[in-house]
Amino acid sequence: MISKNEIKYIQSLYHKKTRDKENVFIVEGQKMVTELFQSNFGIKKVYATEKYVVPEWYSSAVTMISDIELGKMSRLETPNQVLAVVEKKQQQQRIDTEQIILALDGIQDPGNLGTIIRIADWFGIQQIVASQDSADCYNPKTVQATMGSIFRVDVQYLDLNNFLSQSKTKILGALLNGNNVLQHSSISKGILVIGNESKGIRENIKPYINEAVSIPAFGKAESLNAAVATGIILSHLIKK
Amino acid sequence: MISKNEIKYIQSLYHKKTRDKENVFIVEGQKMVTELFQSNFGIKKVYATEKYVVPEWYSSAVTMISDIELGKMSRLETPNQVLAVVEKKQQQQRIDTEQIILALDGIQDPGNLGTIIRIADWFGIQQIVASQDSADCYNPKTVQATMGSIFRVDVQYLDLNNFLSQSKTKILGALLNGNNVLQHSSISKGILVIGNESKGIRENIKPYINEAVSIPAFGKAESLNAAVATGIILSHLIKK
Repeated sequence: MISKNEIKYIQSLYHKKTRDKENVFIVEGQKMVTELFQSNFGIKKVYATEKYVVPEWYSSAVTMISDIELGKMSRLETPNQVLAVVEKKQQQQRIDTEQIILALDGIQDPGNLGTIIRIADWFGIQQIVASQDSADCYNPKTVQATMGSIFRVDVQYLDLNNFLSQSKTKILGALLNGNNVLQHSSISKGILVIGNESKGIRENIKPYINEAVSIPAFGKAESLNAAVATGIILSHLIKK
Repeated sequence: MISKNEIKYIQSLYHKKTRDKENVFIVEGQKMVTELFQSNFGIKKVYATEKYVVPEWYSSAVTMISDIELGKMSRLETPNQVLAVVEKKQQQQRIDTEQIILALDGIQDPGNLGTIIRIADWFGIQQIVASQDSADCYNPKTVQATMGSIFRVDVQYLDLNNFLSQSKTKILGALLNGNNVLQHSSISKGILVIGNESKGIRENIKPYINEAVSIPAFGKAESLNAAVATGIILSHLIKK
């Protein structure tokens, strides 16, 4: 049995303002919370129904709840056994330019952002920088779409203009009429800039791009989903 | 001014049952309806607010509505000027095996399906076959995610088992531990099977796969989003 206030508090974490103020976010569902337990993220609270099997070392700290209570807390269509309140990672200040860095210029859709984080993790990219107006990586929709990659990929919000202007590594950008990425040689470091879903890379960012890369179209679609484009470009830049 | 019944009818088309019975689907928003007017799809009805500029040849048939009325019909977060009721395409019986065909084995998420249709269109693939339990390509979420590609790519629902067993062209499948698709030579025809988001390609379908292809993982993510994987695989199979 948990109090109405506790449920209200969880619900308030669906808003960015409260997440920022409280410095925590929500992680939901069996798979995600299991990955959470394997991560080095600070766990504030875990609510679980009887079905969920909690790791031994954490079991005494779990708050047991009913399916109905979980349903009230969760915004998932089918709430799944467990929900955790987790401390946000501190924004890492140092960025390793000897690796590949993904730079997001105004990605708006939380699902797209989560999918991009998952793609980065797949390709071994551990650093994402994002313009301050990009979607919040701690949005519950983003967190769920990462399928656990949120625990392994660092997302840092910064002034992209400033960051790129000071960068000494090669900057590639996903643009129309760039070099055919399907024929690109592989890279081991550099920054890849991905633009907003509908507007692409902004004008103030374009001057920093050293090389434009494009996915050639063979059909009639005008564009690709931003996450899909990110996945395709990375697979050609990192290929081995 | 339109009647309550008309609004109710539109709302009922958000359900597959009604779409199947009425043989129509909903197309929403400026960009989508503009692409609709350029397609050969049969248009049953167009509702537009004052802002929407209808092509001359269709303008007399448009029903003018208010923003409030559009808001009642639409399920978009920000309803966008226009909504059309459109005739479904008849299931094309002939499939051209001299081209690349995408075969979907139980794709469940309407958004993923729409994104896959958009990817197919980008790579010039005009034929998708899908198992009967796949998401409905006329689901409004799917239609919107195609960004207009629904008007150019044929999606046919069939018994996938039966279809693959009779196929004489090479069948590739996205599977774990297959050949590295990043190093695959390009193909100009064949069937590429994409499995369900969480379960992959089903056991009864696997025996038909002549070649398994995989996207090598460089990091720790367990899997990629099904649409992202489709995009990456196609970009390496079709590369020029």
